[in-house]
Amino acid sequence: MKVRRRRFIVVTLSGPADGEFSLNDLAGSAGRLDILCRCVGAALLISHGIRRDSEVHLLILKDPERPRLISIYGDRVRSLNPDERSTASLLRIALSSREEKETTPGITIRNIGLEQLIHTLQGTNIFLLEEKGDNAWDTIPHTTGEEFTFILGARDDIPPALRDKCLDFHAVPISISPLSLQSEQCITIIHNILDRLSTC
Amino acid sequence: MKVRRRRFIVVTLSGPADGEFSLNDLAGSAGRLDILCRCVGAALLISHGIRRDSEVHLLILKDPERPRLISIYGDRVRSLNPDERSTASLLRIALSSREEKETTPGITIRNIGLEQLIHTLQGTNIFLLEEKGDNAWDTIPHTTGEEFTFILGARDDIPPALRDKCLDFHAVPISISPLSLQSEQCITIIHNILDRLSTC
Repeated sequence: MKVRRRRFIVVTLSGPADGEFSLNDLAGSAGRLDILCRCVGAALLISHGIRRDSEVHLLILKDPERPRLISIYGDRVRSLNPDERSTASLLRIALSSREEKETTPGITIRNIGLEQLIHTLQGTNIFLLEEKGDNAWDTIPHTTGEEFTFILGARDDIPPALRDKCLDFHAVPISISPLSLQSEQCITIIHNILDRLSTC
Repeated sequence: MKVRRRRFIVVTLSGPADGEFSLNDLAGSAGRLDILCRCVGAALLISHGIRRDSEVHLLILKDPERPRLISIYGDRVRSLNPDERSTASLLRIALSSREEKETTPGITIRNIGLEQLIHTLQGTNIFLLEEKGDNAWDTIPHTTGEEFTFILGARDDIPPALRDKCLDFHAVPISISPLSLQSEQCITIIHNILDRLSTC
């Protein structure tokens, strides 16, 4: 099985909408930015290396009328380390920009929501991670196409209205564990499924 | 398959040997304590909950003559959150104690090395995670016994001398990915294998 592109979209209803937060309080006043930092690490980092075929999109909907989307591309990002604090520092630079642009190499900020993002991904395989989805080990191996997009909530399953939008774009609900896991754990397991399928 | 106990032993040759470090520099002067913090989260936390059947042992061998072992037990630990900084704060309390004791609920510090620790685990299934080990999906399902111990290095495979000690105790080398992953990612995948086998 050939996997050319892996894409993770992590949706949060908290998270900071701008760069006005302290790196010393990521899990508090920064609105659980620690979760997003760990998701970045799980999506892009392996031991002593970066997954160049992967990208992660952090969609911050603290104010749903003013979405903020940080995108990080494995093939272009620089100075990405595994610890939460250094990742949060890169995210803070992105969130501090009002302008839509590449704020550091491989990291962009845009003010678009989920629907607009998924629009650009039509024709790829889109999966929605949720607790009651189909078994991922049954579903993913039978997928054709080489580009995989996975959408998940940062703390819980994504809200019903957003879920409906994903289904409109033919997203397939999948589950990767009998337990309810943390979002970065879900990303790690998805990568592992694809890594093992890629070498079959 | 019944899994009664899951135990992870993470070995680091760096890591702080005492509590004299800043929470603002976990990946630097604290000797990559960020890695150990993420391992604690992967070993003990799920979404909105704790794995009460699991425990994690952090063996710090910065000075091999003076090993420091922090043990965290899922069925007793309190105030454990997913972010690195708050976990580091609990570990700092443990490392600040010269006395061997329970420093906060469910967290103990001892000054013992790997051999002494494994001695107490004889009769359980012991696995050694390394890149060239047997395929974990072939090995783990055929294991009898209900208690599982997994030993892994924090940044790389554990050093040859320690590996030999593990093999003396009949540890079975296993691999969980065709790629070299970060230690917390390895723990997440091991849990997922056991979670899925437990519900079969």
